[in-house]
Amino acid sequence: MSVGATSSVIHSSAVLGADTSLGEQCVIGANVRIGAGCRIGHHVVIHDDTVIADHVRIDDHASLGKLPMKAANSATTKEQELPPLTVGELAIVGTGVVLYRGAAIEGKVLMADLCTIRENVTIGRGTIVGRGVTVENFCTVGRYCKLESECYITAYSTLEDRVFIAPGVVTSNDNYVGRTAERFKHFKGVTVRRGGRVGAGVVTLPGVVIGEDALVAAGSVVTRDVPARTVVVGSPAKPWREVPVEQLLENQGWVDA
Amino acid sequence: MSVGATSSVIHSSAVLGADTSLGEQCVIGANVRIGAGCRIGHHVVIHDDTVIADHVRIDDHASLGKLPMKAANSATTKEQELPPLTVGELAIVGTGVVLYRGAAIEGKVLMADLCTIRENVTIGRGTIVGRGVTVENFCTVGRYCKLESECYITAYSTLEDRVFIAPGVVTSNDNYVGRTAERFKHFKGVTVRRGGRVGAGVVTLPGVVIGEDALVAAGSVVTRDVPARTVVVGSPAKPWREVPVEQLLENQGWVDA
Amino acid sequence: MSVGATSSVIHSSAVLGADTSLGEQCVIGANVRIGAGCRIGHHVVIHDDTVIADHVRIDDHASLGKLPMKAANSATTKEQELPPLTVGELAIVGTGVVLYRGAAIEGKVLMADLCTIRENVTIGRGTIVGRGVTVENFCTVGRYCKLESECYITAYSTLEDRVFIAPGVVTSNDNYVGRTAERFKHFKGVTVRRGGRVGAGVVTLPGVVIGEDALVAAGSVVTRDVPARTVVVGSPAKPWREVPVEQLLENQGWVDA
Repeated sequence: MSVGATSSVIHSSAVLGADTSLGEQCVIGANVRIGAGCRIGHHVVIHDDTVIADHVRIDDHASLGKLPMKAANSATTKEQELPPLTVGELAIVGTGVVLYRGAAIEGKVLMADLCTIRENVTIGRGTIVGRGVTVENFCTVGRYCKLESECYITAYSTLEDRVFIAPGVVTSNDNYVGRTAERFKHFKGVTVRRGGRVGAGVVTLPGVVIGEDALVAAGSVVTRDVPARTVVVGSPAKPWREVPVEQLLENQGWVDA
Repeated sequence: MSVGATSSVIHSSAVLGADTSLGEQCVIGANVRIGAGCRIGHHVVIHDDTVIADHVRIDDHASLGKLPMKAANSATTKEQELPPLTVGELAIVGTGVVLYRGAAIEGKVLMADLCTIRENVTIGRGTIVGRGVTVENFCTVGRYCKLESECYITAYSTLEDRVFIAPGVVTSNDNYVGRTAERFKHFKGVTVRRGGRVGAGVVTLPGVVIGEDALVAAGSVVTRDVPARTVVVGSPAKPWREVPVEQLLENQGWVDA
Repeated sequence: MSVGATSSVIHSSAVLGADTSLGEQCVIGANVRIGAGCRIGHHVVIHDDTVIADHVRIDDHASLGKLPMKAANSATTKEQELPPLTVGELAIVGTGVVLYRGAAIEGKVLMADLCTIRENVTIGRGTIVGRGVTVENFCTVGRYCKLESECYITAYSTLEDRVFIAPGVVTSNDNYVGRTAERFKHFKGVTVRRGGRVGAGVVTLPGVVIGEDALVAAGSVVTRDVPARTVVVGSPAKPWREVPVEQLLENQGWVDA
């Protein structure tokens, strides 16, 4: 391991793998384990117990393993014991990214600059989490998804494999819009089935299910479930036509790697 | 006070309260006053004169008390003397948050990761400012509001108490869209009266007033004022029905604390 | 030059101009050249070879000259040799800003907090890039534009001089929404001709051209080209009327400086 001069602060219990390099003025907490061949930038903070696999790139000012902040009047954040943050091999963590303790990131995930991944979230292998994206708590994101820049994934959402969320998509999870005690039983984000696609700037209402390989056209407002392999459009979004055959997931020839 | 080794740089005129802890490599400016029992993360910058009350949590890479940046051709930023930033007791400041000199934050406010609060802004007690939210200059935000992730509050806006702004809401303040000298006299953001709610992904035109306990449905475009206790929907948003009785503010049994 | 104590790490090959000040705990890489009279904040990282002109202000936690991150399955990021980042005189770089190697920023550009400018991008003199804005790779932005807070400029976009993009605008560039090999030949973002304006929260479909001095009303979805000097509105956006004469660019009396 080569460490930037003496400017980083590394807890004595942290373990860094062979050929892992560390930039200037990083802070590495207790019991952190970092694999081999990692490239870590400047001013990176890695909190206690975080586990990072081999060949991970982490850019400047990222903060990994953060503990949740509990607001007096938050609806969904409760006190809990969280397992350490884990980041899989060959993952890339962009500048200013914030990853919470209690997230589990598989290998080859790209987390672009300034994205945030909250606690109780899993991100599947090979997925791209775009610039500025938020994945709130209690979400499951599948493998080989693309969450494009600035999309917002609300708490209690499920994105299956090969899902595509375009830039600026906004999802929601509370039909009671912050009122009634009843609402706590019904929080439900968006569910996007395998290969489902959501176009730029789309807004989804709480609890909608977007079917397998379906497509929501850009700028639409989704107020009800979207059937599989169907293109919907408008506000509220209505079925328009079938997804073109050449765009179906099964016709892409993609092999997971 | 316990300070991370010798890695932080603290101006000799700064005062830190009892049992306040400081992470590594922080920078604390001249005349900064920090209360007792605060928990300050790593790489936090607190600029000159900032006043922080007791039991405040500040996370990594936050920057507090920043001076405005004056662009040659900005429409609303003028040279001015600004009072120091103040942050009330039990407030929480997330990772990468930027708070300007000239903002006044009351107690128990939660400012989530990567939000920005500009100069000449007040934020009332117990309000939640979500992840990535921008509150531009010359805004007043009341008590116990929820400004959800990624909403955008334009300059010259007023949010009264108990207002709810959903994720991805975009507000605007210039009917002249950057043209004519006349526009400088007419900048006006959104006004949301007590208990008003604005749904996910809504866009509001300049100067609209959303009435007391009114509700704008997700995905709507608000082009005119919204009557009290009324649900509006669509583009342009039109009255749809009354707000359900069980969702009215007066029926929530909420006590301010 | 005055440097914050000994807390910054400056490569021996870096050159800083007269009367340039540096905050605490900055990292300045190899062959960096910084002009005279610059004001650099705390925890700023400037990567190898970056060239910064005179009288530039750079705020805390900014990261300049970053190398792109290549995801295994990115559609538009290819391995390439990039020229060093250049930042022109009197530019302002906000807190937490991320500028990539391979971007060229002219003088007097204001880059507000937490914006990101990618590689293979040019930004013309006097343009304002708002808070949280993303300018993706392969974009050309003209002179004296205003890209307001939180707008999103997709890859392969062109904004000519004096363009105005309102807050929360979302642009897109892929009519195939991530499917087919054919799509790689057709990526095309938005083109906005000289003086064109796009209102708050607008969504634009791939490849649309917004004509000279045209105006898209807030909340619209632009699915086809917009004629010059025409106001369009709605979803999909349709011509509504001519741009008011007093709002035409030629009637503003603006002189470039």
